[in-house]
Order: sequence, then C-alpha cells, then structure tokens
Amino acid sequence: MVVVGAGLAGLTAARELVAAGKSVAVLEARDRVGGRLLNHDLGDGQVTEIGGQYVGPTQDHILALAKEVGVDTYQAAIPGEAVYVNDGRAKRFTGHTPPDLLALPDMGIALARVGQAAAKVDPAAPWKAANARELDAMTYETWLRKAEITGDAVDMISLFLNSAYGGEARDASALFSLWYVSTFGNETHPGTMERGTGTTGGAQDSRFVGGSQLVAQRLAEELDGRVHLSAPVRRISQDSTGVTVVCDGGDWRAERVIVAVPPLVASRIVWDPLLPAQQDQLFQRLPFGTLMKCVAVYDKPFWRQDGLSGMGLLRGGSPIREMFDNTPPDGGPGVLMGFLGGREWRKWAHRPAVERRGAVLRCFAQVVGDRAFDTVDYVEQDWTAEQWTQGGPTSVAAPGVLTDFGQWRDRPHHRVHWAGAEFSPYWNGYMDGAVRSGRHTATELLLHQN
Amino acid sequence: MVVVGAGLAGLTAARELVAAGKSVAVLEARDRVGGRLLNHDLGDGQVTEIGGQYVGPTQDHILALAKEVGVDTYQAAIPGEAVYVNDGRAKRFTGHTPPDLLALPDMGIALARVGQAAAKVDPAAPWKAANARELDAMTYETWLRKAEITGDAVDMISLFLNSAYGGEARDASALFSLWYVSTFGNETHPGTMERGTGTTGGAQDSRFVGGSQLVAQRLAEELDGRVHLSAPVRRISQDSTGVTVVCDGGDWRAERVIVAVPPLVASRIVWDPLLPAQQDQLFQRLPFGTLMKCVAVYDKPFWRQDGLSGMGLLRGGSPIREMFDNTPPDGGPGVLMGFLGGREWRKWAHRPAVERRGAVLRCFAQVVGDRAFDTVDYVEQDWTAEQWTQGGPTSVAAPGVLTDFGQWRDRPHHRVHWAGAEFSPYWNGYMDGAVRSGRHTATELLLHQN
Repeated sequence: MVVVGAGLAGLTAARELVAAGKSVAVLEARDRVGGRLLNHDLGDGQVTEIGGQYVGPTQDHILALAKEVGVDTYQAAIPGEAVYVNDGRAKRFTGHTPPDLLALPDMGIALARVGQAAAKVDPAAPWKAANARELDAMTYETWLRKAEITGDAVDMISLFLNSAYGGEARDASALFSLWYVSTFGNETHPGTMERGTGTTGGAQDSRFVGGSQLVAQRLAEELDGRVHLSAPVRRISQDSTGVTVVCDGGDWRAERVIVAVPPLVASRIVWDPLLPAQQDQLFQRLPFGTLMKCVAVYDKPFWRQDGLSGMGLLRGGSPIREMFDNTPPDGGPGVLMGFLGGREWRKWAHRPAVERRGAVLRCFAQVVGDRAFDTVDYVEQDWTAEQWTQGGPTSVAAPGVLTDFGQWRDRPHHRVHWAGAEFSPYWNGYMDGAVRSGRHTATELLLHQN
Repeated sequence: MVVVGAGLAGLTAARELVAAGKSVAVLEARDRVGGRLLNHDLGDGQVTEIGGQYVGPTQDHILALAKEVGVDTYQAAIPGEAVYVNDGRAKRFTGHTPPDLLALPDMGIALARVGQAAAKVDPAAPWKAANARELDAMTYETWLRKAEITGDAVDMISLFLNSAYGGEARDASALFSLWYVSTFGNETHPGTMERGTGTTGGAQDSRFVGGSQLVAQRLAEELDGRVHLSAPVRRISQDSTGVTVVCDGGDWRAERVIVAVPPLVASRIVWDPLLPAQQDQLFQRLPFGTLMKCVAVYDKPFWRQDGLSGMGLLRGGSPIREMFDNTPPDGGPGVLMGFLGGREWRKWAHRPAVERRGAVLRCFAQVVGDRAFDTVDYVEQDWTAEQWTQGGPTSVAAPGVLTDFGQWRDRPHHRVHWAGAEFSPYWNGYMDGAVRSGRHTATELLLHQN
C-alpha cells in the first residue's frame, strides 16, 4: 500500500495498515512529517508551535492517539486576565467573554440561533438538511443578517472565523458554516459553537507537551523507515492490476493508495484516469483560507507578572484579532502568538515584512504593554506560501458547493481512497478530524482488500 | 518567447509576437489547437460545433481577427418559430421572449434593475464599485431576491446562467454577476444584459462558416510550425536570466512566457518560484462551471419545414433548458444542440449515458416533435471531463473573491504574463475576451522587452 502525505491522517492510516500486516510506504512531499503541524525550535530543547496546536474535549481520536504514542497534554489557559481591545482602548477581563460583550444580550441570542440552526444539520450529510438548498444559496454573512445577528455578536463570530476559516462570513455558505458548527462534537455530544470557540472546556482547551508535531514525529518513528521524505507525488496512474505513484525520486507500485492531502493539493496531482468530473469540481471548489501565525519571542513571559494571561481579543481593524501566550509549558522564553487571518491577511500579506512586523507588535503592545517591542526573535509562518497546503487552516466551501458536490467527497477513485482533516464528519479541519479520517479510511481500504 | 496554450488567446498573442519579429514557440497540451473551440466532423466536409460558437456586435476583436484570417460569419438565427416549453406544455413564439414572459412586467423590471446595478460596475475594476463590498458579500441569488426579481424573471435569468456560467445564481457573488453583465460590451458600448442574452443583435448573433475552431486552425497555420501539440506543460521554473518550461517531450528556455490557459489550469502547473500566495488564492477561487453540449444529428433539419427555428426554451426541471438549430450553414445533415449545464449537469452527468441520451432527446422532441428520436448520430461533449479545461464555459467567482483577490489577476509573475478569456475586461469568458487578452498581453510583454 502507498499512503500519500505524512500528516496526521496519512500517518494514522499507515499505522493501521501496518497493524493489519500490510506492507506500507508513506510518501511525503516535504522534508518533514506533520503537514499543518509544525514545531518551531526555540533553542535549548524548547519548542513553540507555528501550525495547529490546540485540542479539547470530544476530540477523542487525537487524544487517544497522543496517549498511545506517549505525548502528554496540558491545560492551555494561562492564569491571569485577558485583554479586550476595542478601537485602541484596552480593558482587562477574566473568563471566556470580554466585559462589553458579556453585558450584551446579543451574544447569547446569537449563540442560541446558530446552535438551533446547526442542530438541524447532520455532520455526516449536511446536504440532507430539510432547508439545505435554501441555506446553501446564501453566504453565512447573509444568514447572520437574516437571523438578526448583528453588531458586536457578528464581530465576535467574525473574529472566530478569522482563525477558524482563515476567512470571513461572506466566504462561506450558510450551510457550510452551520454544518461546521455541527462538527464540533462527536457521536454522543452534538457540536456546539461554544465548544468550537471555547478555551477551557472547548477546542482550545489543551496543548501537547513537546508541541503537536511531536505526535506526528512519534508516529513516523513507529513506522520505522516506511516514511519517505522529500518525495512529492506528481502523478497517479491506475490500471486493472494496481496503481503507479510517480514521485520525485522514483515510482511506486501499489494495490491500493490512500491520498491523505487536502482536496486542493490532491487536485494538483496529475491523475490518470482523471478524477470523476464531479469530484474534481468539488476539489476545485474547496479553496484554503488565508492564515499566518505571527510569533514574538521574549526573554521570559513578562506579562504574567503583571497578572496577564497573554490572551488578547482585538477589534476595530487590528491586523491581529486574537492572540495567546504560547510559552513552552516548562518555562523557557516567553512567546506571544497572534493570528493574521482572513481579510487582515489579505490586507497585510503582500506588504513589506518589516512593516507587518511593526503592526503586529503594536497589537501585542496594546495587550501586554510596550515591552512587546523588546523581542528576542520574531517569526511568521504564512501557510498560504507553503507549496503543500497553499493556505490555512482548512478548506471553506462557498454557496452551492455542499449541496451540489458534497456527496462526492469521500468516494474512492478506483483503487485510490481519501483521508485528511477535510474528510471527517467531526472536527473537520482539525487534528481530531485528520486522525478519525485516517482510521476510517484504513478500515475502508482493508475491507476492500479482504 | 514561449506561449503556453494554443487557444484563441495564446494563438493571438503568438501572432502578435511573431509580427514584432520575436522567436516564438506555442506549447499545447492537447493534440489539437482551439482550446474551448471544437468542431465536430459530420462527414462530407461538414462540421458542427461542440464548444464555443457564437459571436455578436461589440465583439470587435474576434470579428476583426476572423476577417483577417479569412473566416466568414453568418447570421445564427434560423427563420421560423421558437418553442417555449413550460411544465411539459409547448407553445410556439417569435422574437426574443416567450409569450408568457412577454406579457409579464417582471422581465422588463428585472432587466432594468440588473442593468442599473451593472452600470455602476467598472468592467476593468469591479472591486472599485461604491458598494463593491456589500455586493460581494452575497450571492447573486440573494441579490435577485433583494431586488424583488422573482418567479418567471428569475427562472429566465437562471436559464441564461445555466449555459453562460455552467452554473446557478447561488454559485456566483452578486458583484461578479453584475460585473459580468458590465463586460457584455466594449469601450464605447457599455455592457447590457440584453446584449449578453440576445440572439440577433446580441452575443448569439452570428456564427463562423466552417466552425469557430477554424479561426484557431488558421492562426496555427499562419504560425507555420511554431505550434507544438501534445506538449503539456508540467513545470515552469524561473531564474535571473530566464524561464524554463518543462513539458512532455522536452524543456524550453525563454526570456519571457505567456501562460494562456484558464486560471484553474495554470494553478495546476508546478511553479518555481511559487505563484504569489494572493494570486494562487485567486486561482484557487476561480472554479469552472459545469457544462455539457448534447448534439443530435438527423438526415436533414426536418423541423424547418414545420416552420420551426429549432430554438427551444424549456422550464420546469428539463435537463436541457436551451436548445438551438446547429445545422451547418450550407445545408447538410440537420443538427440540434442543447446545453446541459449548471444544476442539470450536476443531476445528470453521472447517470448512464443511455439514460441521459433518452432524457435529452425527450426534451428535443418537446420542441420539434417525435422525429427528434430518429437520430443519425448523437454526441455529447462534456467540458468538465476535459483535462485541460476541467469545466465550462468559464470561471465563476463566489462571494468575497473579486474584492479580496481580484486585483491579483493580471499581475505578471516575474517573467510570466497571463492571457486568456478569463483575463479580459470585456466579454470575459468569451472568444472576444480571449483575443483581446492575447493582444493586450503580447503588447505588455513587448513593452517589458524593450
């Protein structure tokens, strides 16, 4: 068997196949494993993450896998107050919701309306919702207006989408967005917006000791020589007896193949025979969001002694709209991380790096004070510039896509099966979705085999 | 110079470059020239078209070019009555608009509202419209509802989009759709919906004697050995002194390159360096529509002796919603052609060919009677199954795309310049847009050269 892609989905699938006694080769385009998980070396054995990093309750698959490979989790929240910046005015607060918004009935009403609508969407088949066609004919922005969700509540939803989609409410169909909320759960706990947006108790509850990429690295170690790096797959040809996978450095022949890369990246492989037109159309219509992580490194997490958690929510046109303390768990240098996503990425990504750095640090300073400018290091990870993802953090579907093409997502293409974070009914686009999908597809393939 | 793609844009650009004394090679992936123009051989020297075929007033560039290469035009309209089928009931009519609709004030109001809104959009820079952001936050379907364009008028607009977009009003942003209307013109005649949808006097006014592909074939002949067929370009690498174009059958080295393929197809080339992330994002977000042409061939155009023009407009869930007499101008076998596009393609494309053929011929029979079943031949051209276009007839932008990424469309990528029907401010997605763009880009490149 050949698995294309050594992200969490591909590595998980390979592990299952090996456990079933199959001969497996994993082909990875990059010179590293982990896909959208990426540790950044801070020196002295310390790391911080510049890709996906958070896990939380109901993400049972990634949590169980991490335990199996001996990677521990810890609570992500840092004691102290968060800071809410609105039009340049900073205000400290504790808990999930900034003080201005806590007082507003808007936010509660918004969450209730989104929740009620999302509860009617099946995470495994959103196109079957009673009003699927109507919801898929409008953008999420239009839906929010129609639901009379406005003002501050829309701004807070937009702030969430900025990092969750790398995009805006107008980029996605209403059906996609309500479906996405329905995926923030598992078989026994239906998805809720609160779980998706939450820190403690939500999707941003915990982190991995040693960085999230360590889970992928441990999986690769277990696979013991079966992972081939710097082996980008250029072409996949199928005939009646098997599959030829052409990659830089040589061809591989397999009975069956799991392609575990995002739909967009899969669509850029040369296919012979071509993908079914319906599936190609779907993959054409699943662009990636635009997201950059901006990381400032300091001698130590100085904000903590001021009683600050390092968490900031910024409104009013700030390039960084959400930021967090990303300091390694056992101390070491202080790290602040901010998301530059969606429309802010589109405003800022093409400007000179030095100008952008200044704007980002000014955001950080609004939250933790002027010592934010005294950086030891500053790093940007722009996922749109990564050849093997071409955006981040996940694929977002515009109106019409789910109802007209969604059903084609998981269909095997002859001997080629699909896996990846974008191929999961729960935590789609998240680590948990990747692991779920990797397991599910390995099982599917073994069934076809036997 | 290397030109990638021997469609109208690439061939026109190559012609201009040769005229300026440049050494030129045109690399074409297919074993033929013409891109989305494709003649179908009917035998005895007769052809009919299974790709783009119509031209009309204000499409000055394609009309002038055809004249230069000696391809004549003729009026597309066939004398006789058209047929309007609504829920299975056929009714004959003459003129542009079916009788039911002619009587309705809806249609006039709809055209006026679309026209007024489109007039405020600059075909060269739609993102600069005063209300661009608002228009780009909603689908065209949402906009039509807000403009109180409903019922029959929406259905007629949808019928037009079925072939013009290979899609539906929900697939496109309102800004894209109003911009698209603004492109149905030229520098002296602002675009109008009527010109886009019209037969005589509109975009479906005329056809080419010998078929539209003949224009491309004549251009290729003129280029005398400079067009290399079956040469798909796999990779484009640039360094400080030039460009290496890697294609099946060998590498080419050039000072500058014009890539004259659709954005989607361009994005599937391996780029080194990568495209700017903003431009890659735009190309990710320009999927192709879904469109098939269904062609039935008969001994002769029997419907003409019944006083019918062969034109049919069908409503109420018919797979074919628009059909035309596509008989060669100097007689020969009778040909009926119907568009299977948008949602109908999505319903029908994956069904067995024989079932689809039956459904299509039943549509034809509703318009011209049961002799429609007595075919000599039946041909389908599914543009979504064509590797080098992956859809048809053109690219359609969902909400958010034009305002956030539109400005990146035409930017040269170092020594690589862009051309194609999707790169024109007028008749974008049409033959005229391709020729305009080919000329424009050749001029731009020559300026960089000198």
